[in-house]
Amino acid sequence: MKRKITLKQIAKELDVSISTVSKALSNSKEISEDTTQKIQAFAKLYNYRPNNIALSLKNRKTKTIGILIPEIVHHFFSTVIRGIELVANNRGYNVIVGLSNESFTKEIINMEMLANGSIDGFILSISKETLLKQDYHHFHATINQGMPIVLFDRVVNEVKCDKVVVDDFKGSVKAVNKLISTGCKNIALITTMDYVSVGRLRTQGYLEALQEHKMHADSNLILKIDDSLDVEDQLDNLENEVENFFKVNKKIDGVFAVNELYAVTAMKVVRKLGLHIPNDVQVIGFTDGVLSKHARPSLTTVSQHGQKIGEKAADLLIDRLERDELEEADYIEESDRNEHFKTVVIETALIERDSTK
Amino acid sequence: MKRKITLKQIAKELDVSISTVSKALSNSKEISEDTTQKIQAFAKLYNYRPNNIALSLKNRKTKTIGILIPEIVHHFFSTVIRGIELVANNRGYNVIVGLSNESFTKEIINMEMLANGSIDGFILSISKETLLKQDYHHFHATINQGMPIVLFDRVVNEVKCDKVVVDDFKGSVKAVNKLISTGCKNIALITTMDYVSVGRLRTQGYLEALQEHKMHADSNLILKIDDSLDVEDQLDNLENEVENFFKVNKKIDGVFAVNELYAVTAMKVVRKLGLHIPNDVQVIGFTDGVLSKHARPSLTTVSQHGQKIGEKAADLLIDRLERDELEEADYIEESDRNEHFKTVVIETALIERDSTK
Repeated sequence: MKRKITLKQIAKELDVSISTVSKALSNSKEISEDTTQKIQAFAKLYNYRPNNIALSLKNRKTKTIGILIPEIVHHFFSTVIRGIELVANNRGYNVIVGLSNESFTKEIINMEMLANGSIDGFILSISKETLLKQDYHHFHATINQGMPIVLFDRVVNEVKCDKVVVDDFKGSVKAVNKLISTGCKNIALITTMDYVSVGRLRTQGYLEALQEHKMHADSNLILKIDDSLDVEDQLDNLENEVENFFKVNKKIDGVFAVNELYAVTAMKVVRKLGLHIPNDVQVIGFTDGVLSKHARPSLTTVSQHGQKIGEKAADLLIDRLERDELEEADYIEESDRNEHFKTVVIETALIERDSTK
Repeated sequence: MKRKITLKQIAKELDVSISTVSKALSNSKEISEDTTQKIQAFAKLYNYRPNNIALSLKNRKTKTIGILIPEIVHHFFSTVIRGIELVANNRGYNVIVGLSNESFTKEIINMEMLANGSIDGFILSISKETLLKQDYHHFHATINQGMPIVLFDRVVNEVKCDKVVVDDFKGSVKAVNKLISTGCKNIALITTMDYVSVGRLRTQGYLEALQEHKMHADSNLILKIDDSLDVEDQLDNLENEVENFFKVNKKIDGVFAVNELYAVTAMKVVRKLGLHIPNDVQVIGFTDGVLSKHARPSLTTVSQHGQKIGEKAADLLIDRLERDELEEADYIEESDRNEHFKTVVIETALIERDSTK
């Protein structure tokens, strides 16, 4: 067996980026004709087959689903994987997990590796760097080659495929409504930078709820955390940042945080400043993880139902794989079968605990 | 390309278990000659190659490490993966994760899938069911075919390979010594069933510390939790079980729990019974995860350094892979290169927080 060359090796040999190679091989217009020709010629010489996904699909089913997630130390993603596994095992499929570590290049490398005959389709959540770059050519290429993708949680309109999302917008409206209805007048939002779609939607939900109640949205009460830092650096900075935020905004009587860690950190800071939860400040977090249940006071949260998201995503992918199989047998046109992508919205639930009145 | 048959398909076709097929193909003496011949003939007919691991190894390096863990929703395993990734990425390797879900059969299926040309070697922690069965033929077969394995955390003497373990025994001695030195007279142990090696070692450490201090080990003060149940069932039962345990053992003034969840649950029950932590009851947990830091009172723990375990395991595996490569080039005998396996012990640290005096 001749050694198969990888995108990474082509990139190294020609001294270009992995993403340039990946784009050139999928005939992206972003890459100059010269470069595209050079890369394609080189790939051909070394027997690189950008279409071997489709080839392998025609000839065998692996009965394996590839999951690609941005981060492993993350309770939400873990519960999604549990849901995927549950359905996959029931329906006779195995799963395998790749990690992008929030990196665009690692996302491409992992997709190439998994797509190379190991799996039948992908369930994935997009890395932050990819969202920041807004470069989705590797998803398009994979789908065009006949391998289905189901996106979950972090999804984009530009990629045409089945999707499973939580209702981030409505979930946030629910949370902020709860704070308003229990008397909060100055509600702070602790969120991420806007390029992460879920952070953006949750921010919009916060603003919507305020507007519905004719409350003024004070931009000073919105703290945007730069979570592109290393996890360890983040933890050190986070508490300081939140503490400074509370010190300059003494009137805060309610906090909505877009994730559990931000919410628990806010509770810690509030206590440190000698204030009582929920009497002086009420706190709600998005994401119902293990921290929320065991925190003291226990944290009121918007539950995302990670396991349900995983179950639904697995069902969508396997349905499509098995429909494709049927339809291949019946010689149905490609153009027919790739239509009608579904976006399933999983409703959130407000789980009331002791951090709110 | 002809469709490759899998162990699962052979098993189904011949109406035997996957483990029987796997054993027959590696010439295990546990399987009758008749059955072995039948399975091998069938495998040959369908072009199943039990030795294709070795074949693919000779011909190409994937620069990918396969990680196989029992469970994904588990902070310890997540941090180990983070450590493996860190070193792997620095040394030019990618990682891919398979999950056994504590199942013997899934462990075999995942190993087959990953070993089939996707990876260069394994880093893995053994599933509970495999430990219970004490059946390690699939590890032996993989190693014999030239694919190295590094075991971590849940390891067994029977498998000859590099290993990374935490010092479970000494870590427990440290924890129980701390409880004794701060005045505890009736120290409870909350642990798992004995067949999980780490649970057994931690129990031994508890007994050793008591003996060193000439304290009587009261078997009524040892609660063994059956964690072979589903995770969800466990959580429901756990609190009840721990509460009953405390109710019949009112003299308990110290608790050592072999994991974080048991420790946090014990704290919850202690508070519920109107006792003060640490004045009435002190609590120490094994495993320093996110719960321990954020619990109130924060939990004193034995830190396992999951990330360090992962880093060390990755270094051991990549060292061996790259040594093998060198030695293959020099035609060194197989028997020479497979000797000298290392077992690296990662020291634990006692992290003192507010649940102890």
